[in-house]
Amino acid sequence: MKAGEDKLVQRIAKALAFKSGPWPALGIGDDAALLAPHPGYETVLTCDWFLQGSHFLPGKHPADSIGWKCLARAVSDIAAMGGQPTCFLLSLALPDDASLKGASRGNRWLGEFLGGLRRAARRFGCVLAGGDTTQRREILINVTVVGEVRAGRAVKRSGAKVGDRIFVSGTLGEAELGLQKLRRGTRISLRRNDRALRKHLYPEPRLALGQWLADRRLATSMMDVSDGLSSDLPRLCAASQVGARISTAEIPSPKVPLTGTKQRFDALALALNGGDDYELLFTVSQNNVGRMPRSFQGIALTEIGEITRERRIVTVQQDGTPKPLLPRGWDPFRK
Amino acid sequence: MKAGEDKLVQRIAKALAFKSGPWPALGIGDDAALLAPHPGYETVLTCDWFLQGSHFLPGKHPADSIGWKCLARAVSDIAAMGGQPTCFLLSLALPDDASLKGASRGNRWLGEFLGGLRRAARRFGCVLAGGDTTQRREILINVTVVGEVRAGRAVKRSGAKVGDRIFVSGTLGEAELGLQKLRRGTRISLRRNDRALRKHLYPEPRLALGQWLADRRLATSMMDVSDGLSSDLPRLCAASQVGARISTAEIPSPKVPLTGTKQRFDALALALNGGDDYELLFTVSQNNVGRMPRSFQGIALTEIGEITRERRIVTVQQDGTPKPLLPRGWDPFRK
Repeated sequence: MKAGEDKLVQRIAKALAFKSGPWPALGIGDDAALLAPHPGYETVLTCDWFLQGSHFLPGKHPADSIGWKCLARAVSDIAAMGGQPTCFLLSLALPDDASLKGASRGNRWLGEFLGGLRRAARRFGCVLAGGDTTQRREILINVTVVGEVRAGRAVKRSGAKVGDRIFVSGTLGEAELGLQKLRRGTRISLRRNDRALRKHLYPEPRLALGQWLADRRLATSMMDVSDGLSSDLPRLCAASQVGARISTAEIPSPKVPLTGTKQRFDALALALNGGDDYELLFTVSQNNVGRMPRSFQGIALTEIGEITRERRIVTVQQDGTPKPLLPRGWDPFRK
Repeated sequence: MKAGEDKLVQRIAKALAFKSGPWPALGIGDDAALLAPHPGYETVLTCDWFLQGSHFLPGKHPADSIGWKCLARAVSDIAAMGGQPTCFLLSLALPDDASLKGASRGNRWLGEFLGGLRRAARRFGCVLAGGDTTQRREILINVTVVGEVRAGRAVKRSGAKVGDRIFVSGTLGEAELGLQKLRRGTRISLRRNDRALRKHLYPEPRLALGQWLADRRLATSMMDVSDGLSSDLPRLCAASQVGARISTAEIPSPKVPLTGTKQRFDALALALNGGDDYELLFTVSQNNVGRMPRSFQGIALTEIGEITRERRIVTVQQDGTPKPLLPRGWDPFRK
């Protein structure tokens, strides 16, 4: 007789099994995972909630997207340090019906979830090293990702200096646009190849870019934009004890669909306050700005402003008037 | 204006701040934590759910016990490898009322929770290195603990050999007895210094014992007893591809209170199936049994049986008759 939880753990381990270098020395099924970091490297460590109702809606989000995204968003924190993920722990709470039984809806959900997670794990070179499972009315996920970065090369939030230029990768607000399309949920807008929708469902952490910026010591500070630029830029500035002035005209915002002549979405508001983009926000010293390409592996790198001594965050409008930037991104505790 | 989540993170960081060696290089407030493991050591990594309703009852469990125990149970997995914890990540989901406001019940709860967590962190030498916070109707906790162990010295579940003697530390079933007392909740039984109640509310991971057994290479296999001996011993045996024969008379079970001449609890059932003990279950080769003391730092070390070639788990009753041991410990997916 095999206990229910042990069976679930075996199923997860089997779904996620693939070879990927020497990590980890000891994986699933022991009390803890054992890792042997490479000499000359530091360990990078992060964790992220991904909760039914708060971060995904089972009726709207495909199970394979939930599997992909729960890992991708934690891996993005490793990318934001300039690191490479190596392994992860999966804490999973599932309703009883989702556990193990034949053709049940829950069992199909679990299969698709593990499929998406496996695709992400292979893409990011990140093996399952352990975790914890339990039963719960709602689906709860917590992912811990371990990575490594060459000693002394990790890019922190706190390194921005007055005069540094502020860059972002890719387009901001696209994932929020995808979420809004998903919520409205018309057949046409939900085409799987819709760019904004894909960005919301299957975000790609900027691992290669983060490592390239860290290896060349180009970024003086860096973080990922996960809660929205208007919430995340103040965090980078607070950590660096500086301010910032950004130009709204330069912010790479999404192309929004037109209804007649009227835009259904405010592109700038999406770009400033939309969450879940997992792009990189980083600063480059004036001396190095000339070394920055306009894009990296097809991802645009856009200069949006500069770091200031005055510890305020200001947006400069197209007519030149400055306006304070209020944090209006994702905050679960906002009133 | 400071966003709500940032304020909560600052409060947690402040409550948990204390100096403890070089870990971690970079803590709370960046995208990820940075760690530099000592040369010659491997990293040990584990995580654990601790969820309202599943693992604790806010009406029954004091907040400082929830803070202590969420860390202690994850640290116990590090003890079971023979490792020393170094830092942890705290993922915390709180109802809105628990967040930040003056004399509210939730705010008092948070203060006491952080107090218990801080006491545990200091006791175990384990500093807060990061985490994730969000808002949720119910209190959800997930703790990741990082530790280290001398390279090659970690004690796995898979090392038990035929003929090895099986040991447990301390008393089994005491925490379950404490839980049952807590549920029945009479004033008398709920004295804070009640031994069983203390073991349930404030478990002590067997860190020193685990390290001592690993350093001396005395344990051939080891795990912690968290779900109950009848569920955990089969796991150790499965990992080692062996069986076991244990003697019920030898199992260190709790002293149970008497009602008249009748015992209100079945001491053996508590010892076999009770969860949450966080004692160590380990095996010692026949050659080394003579080197085993009867206790370590005041904790009894009891030989309860031996490892067998035949891959069954058998209990031998006091009259000598063998009986198969069925896994009746904690399993969230048990029907």
